[in-house]
Amino acid sequence: MTVTLIYLDPDSKLNLQSQIRQKLVEAILAGTYAAGSKLPSSRKLAEQLGVARNTVVLAYEQLIEEGFLESRQRSGIFVNEHILAGRVGFHGKPSGKAILDPRWSKRIRLKTRTGTQFHWPANWQRYPYPFIDGHFDSSLYPATQWREASRLALGTRIIDEGEGEEGHADYPALLEEIRTKMLPRRGITARADEILITLGGQNAHYLLARLLVDHTTTVAMEEPGNPVVRQLLDQAGAQTIHCPVDEHGMVVNSRLNDAQVIYVTPSHQIPTAVTMPNQRRRALLRQATTHDQLIIEDDLEHENNYLGQPHPALRGMDRENRVVYLSALPKVLAPGLRIGFIVAAPELIRQARRLRQVVIGRPSMITQTTAAFFLSLGHYDAFMARLHKTMGQRWEALRQALNHYMRDIEVELPTQGGTALWVQCPAEIDVKNLVTEAAKRGILLEPDSHYYSDRQHPRSYFRLGVTSIPEQNIREGINQLTRLIREMCTDQIPHMDRNDPALLNAGQLLEAMRGATIMIRTFYSDPCTIELHEDGKMTGRSGHADEDCDTGKWWLEGNVWCRQWKHWGYGDISKLQVTLDGDHIRWWRPGGRLVDAGILHRKKC
Amino acid sequence: MTVTLIYLDPDSKLNLQSQIRQKLVEAILAGTYAAGSKLPSSRKLAEQLGVARNTVVLAYEQLIEEGFLESRQRSGIFVNEHILAGRVGFHGKPSGKAILDPRWSKRIRLKTRTGTQFHWPANWQRYPYPFIDGHFDSSLYPATQWREASRLALGTRIIDEGEGEEGHADYPALLEEIRTKMLPRRGITARADEILITLGGQNAHYLLARLLVDHTTTVAMEEPGNPVVRQLLDQAGAQTIHCPVDEHGMVVNSRLNDAQVIYVTPSHQIPTAVTMPNQRRRALLRQATTHDQLIIEDDLEHENNYLGQPHPALRGMDRENRVVYLSALPKVLAPGLRIGFIVAAPELIRQARRLRQVVIGRPSMITQTTAAFFLSLGHYDAFMARLHKTMGQRWEALRQALNHYMRDIEVELPTQGGTALWVQCPAEIDVKNLVTEAAKRGILLEPDSHYYSDRQHPRSYFRLGVTSIPEQNIREGINQLTRLIREMCTDQIPHMDRNDPALLNAGQLLEAMRGATIMIRTFYSDPCTIELHEDGKMTGRSGHADEDCDTGKWWLEGNVWCRQWKHWGYGDISKLQVTLDGDHIRWWRPGGRLVDAGILHRKKC
Repeated sequence: MTVTLIYLDPDSKLNLQSQIRQKLVEAILAGTYAAGSKLPSSRKLAEQLGVARNTVVLAYEQLIEEGFLESRQRSGIFVNEHILAGRVGFHGKPSGKAILDPRWSKRIRLKTRTGTQFHWPANWQRYPYPFIDGHFDSSLYPATQWREASRLALGTRIIDEGEGEEGHADYPALLEEIRTKMLPRRGITARADEILITLGGQNAHYLLARLLVDHTTTVAMEEPGNPVVRQLLDQAGAQTIHCPVDEHGMVVNSRLNDAQVIYVTPSHQIPTAVTMPNQRRRALLRQATTHDQLIIEDDLEHENNYLGQPHPALRGMDRENRVVYLSALPKVLAPGLRIGFIVAAPELIRQARRLRQVVIGRPSMITQTTAAFFLSLGHYDAFMARLHKTMGQRWEALRQALNHYMRDIEVELPTQGGTALWVQCPAEIDVKNLVTEAAKRGILLEPDSHYYSDRQHPRSYFRLGVTSIPEQNIREGINQLTRLIREMCTDQIPHMDRNDPALLNAGQLLEAMRGATIMIRTFYSDPCTIELHEDGKMTGRSGHADEDCDTGKWWLEGNVWCRQWKHWGYGDISKLQVTLDGDHIRWWRPGGRLVDAGILHRKKC
Repeated sequence: MTVTLIYLDPDSKLNLQSQIRQKLVEAILAGTYAAGSKLPSSRKLAEQLGVARNTVVLAYEQLIEEGFLESRQRSGIFVNEHILAGRVGFHGKPSGKAILDPRWSKRIRLKTRTGTQFHWPANWQRYPYPFIDGHFDSSLYPATQWREASRLALGTRIIDEGEGEEGHADYPALLEEIRTKMLPRRGITARADEILITLGGQNAHYLLARLLVDHTTTVAMEEPGNPVVRQLLDQAGAQTIHCPVDEHGMVVNSRLNDAQVIYVTPSHQIPTAVTMPNQRRRALLRQATTHDQLIIEDDLEHENNYLGQPHPALRGMDRENRVVYLSALPKVLAPGLRIGFIVAAPELIRQARRLRQVVIGRPSMITQTTAAFFLSLGHYDAFMARLHKTMGQRWEALRQALNHYMRDIEVELPTQGGTALWVQCPAEIDVKNLVTEAAKRGILLEPDSHYYSDRQHPRSYFRLGVTSIPEQNIREGINQLTRLIREMCTDQIPHMDRNDPALLNAGQLLEAMRGATIMIRTFYSDPCTIELHEDGKMTGRSGHADEDCDTGKWWLEGNVWCRQWKHWGYGDISKLQVTLDGDHIRWWRPGGRLVDAGILHRKKC
């Protein structure tokens, strides 16, 4: 039975019995007394309220009559099970509260703008093709290992220590794990007093923005860039310089000169996922030295490197303590663990610690202990290895699907890497429209507009992520997406002209193709060479170092040329018509669209 | 073996070998490569860095020579176990980072002042007499129940939901538990959209201060009052009106008129622990209506009511939605759980939710789920009942000890209730001094200065808390504290004059005392009546309704009067000399200090 305090107002115009009735009705309608729950006996309630028992009895009787309560023999008084059943749309609004709604706008001093960020639908997990970056399907959560670490942490004697003059110290074992296991992976050496643990990446961003930015500060950030940072700079009233991003990340030039703080995502630029090469990193550091600037290095995406050798963080290259580094434990752990960290000069860390004390008190000690166990048991390394493997496979599946299905659509992929692709779709397509239509077909895409300072002029990019889509759904998702894009821009794609004099018939086909070598480009502009052997077999080599090879067969069916790879193109049979203009070969879907084009070398006889 | 990224700078004046050496030394000194840990083989490192193997071999050799590394046959290269042993006070500062120290002060835009709050020593748990309020000895932590709730939460499928336009929703089951189990105890009815979950009480304070206060706002707060709030108002640049506190809490008068926001702690005033009676609560609400003000009701201490019927929260009495209520789950759970909540108008909650999204992202879902289980399993109610029992016992022990030991010291106790006592000590004592001296004897007290806006003029109060001192240590702690106070103000206490003509001898004593009734006041100014029966027994009745009774015996030893209660005074024997001046009776330690005084009624013959 719930203990409920009822306040009786001696100044009220209502008598005690009516007040009791009114409060009980309020509590029942608000669900404080749930349907079917038992109420205190009239004797008990009367005692508690300091009123005559009869006052309560009469109030109860009237409520029974009105159907709010029911009396059950020898059991007591209960809330009527069905009392809320008929009240469609009733939200339990207590009666009698004067509404101050119109006045809150003048009372609230700090308003947080909405609409600055893109939000996936809350039920994204029900979509078959969620090309999301940043949410993780629950299969990735290392539940067993996390439970083990939790069990150990719960068995640890947690010391409720005093916080000290400078705010709470962090849990030394966790600091040590970050210092000796996570930071060295990023080429960073840091002492304990150069690290602050935060409540995840967002909290790290917030603390740094509060510490380093106000309305007098000019901050340079990437365009397109991280909307989280854009929102914080906006709230701080900072001046913002929007710096373009090319295939090497933020462009370093005189545009940066006026900034006091440069915000940058060198390891995986947000949103394009390009990686800044060392040469530009050095240029950026020189720029900061010359103009006496601070750099905030957002390395939250560092975990998403599945390709090639990682570059060390800027903070690892910095000899002048100008770089303020922020990162976090992997986001896939976020449901149980939001732990981020800032690495910077001790002076800044000291102030950040004080501010953290004011903002959140201290990050939960049990969470910190759990994280320390998770790292020290080696679960982190094992988990990262597994995550990389899964993400690498999904990423490869996405690349393969795009290469297979989007060959006949002109889309531009300015970059690659990590868990997301930044795709430019045909100019005639309105990205917002595409995102909406795709969602109707079960495909979730992220539009581009919230990454730009000027949201009115989107650049017709969208983002495809793989952190939450099962590998086996990627192919069909891209297949469906390709169809949708085709429907939305019918006119752009060349169609076959049946009267094209260059259209090859069966005899011409055989002559042209047998023993020929064809050079094409993949969807990603990698070179690809296909040799058509005379015996109907074929060999394909793709990539700058021929790193991807496959074999297959080709044959004719009338004037249709057929091919089937062992692995490429999912091993499907493609049936195509061919035109040849000099050595310019083009494949068409019979009677339909252009599929691919290349250069044909005939074997010298 | 730790994976460490080493960055080689092509612009460096050092050659590759020297750079490798330098980076390795840095990593060893900073502990990134721990003493005794194994390094990668020269072949592997050379491969990773893209340098000739010999470059690494030479760097390793030199480091072996210098004693940083050691080569173990057939095992590899290791960091010398003893490398850091001789370096007393070495903190692993990497060489070569230019120090920007003097310049941070101009770069940091928001500085958090320290020294605004009092901090217990970090090792408070080692003090035998920690009269602390707010930290809890670990015996109180409901470890078993918490583990059960954690286990269940870890077994729950956590949905990583999208955050939505307005920020993350709270975990519905936890909201429901707060709404239907916690708030009704405080007389509050609230819908789900009137509640926001925060990261503990501090975070709730922070969000409200950011939302409702800026440099244009005038806020009224109690004096003495909560230093947490003082610090936040200070940081926001608000105007503050300091309102005096009397035995009924914040004084409500015209001083409040100019405030837009009134911050108040009605259930247990911080720090005095007085409770605001209903009449003043109504006056405060009327004040807010008349002057169109908001009230922030801090109910974080609500759990600490061990005496009498609780008053409902202001929020429960408010009919105009002017009261913004904040509270939290009990602080004793803080090591694992920092969950606070704000209850207010939906308009404010909406903005608070957006701000929370910016500040911390979302409170951990596993923590929220654990808390929901803890509440729904009934652990919360059982735990609170146990906590109340323990605190009630400690509180009683503290009262008893003060009554016993401090009878002969003039200290003023303006109030009572909860887990702490606000004690005014003799004016001649410097409280800071007292706190320092007490700590040397193992007694921790909280001084008063940080509760006042004007810290330069402390009022010679100190605070005695019982949340972390075991019941059995309270008596001795107060005994020791009394001795210390006596030492620090020898001259104030009257001493017996052996030539006092009113000093009773054996015969006079017997005549005066036998059958007499003596009226005294307890340390808490409660009336106390002692009847001395002729047969040497005695009866005592204390309190306004004689709620505390005891029996004992009295006898004479020469001209010393002896007494022993069964329970009172720990059942100790007191040996006292007596003076009688009319009906004014005084007891003295033989040859020494005044112990107590009262009125003696002789039995009518």
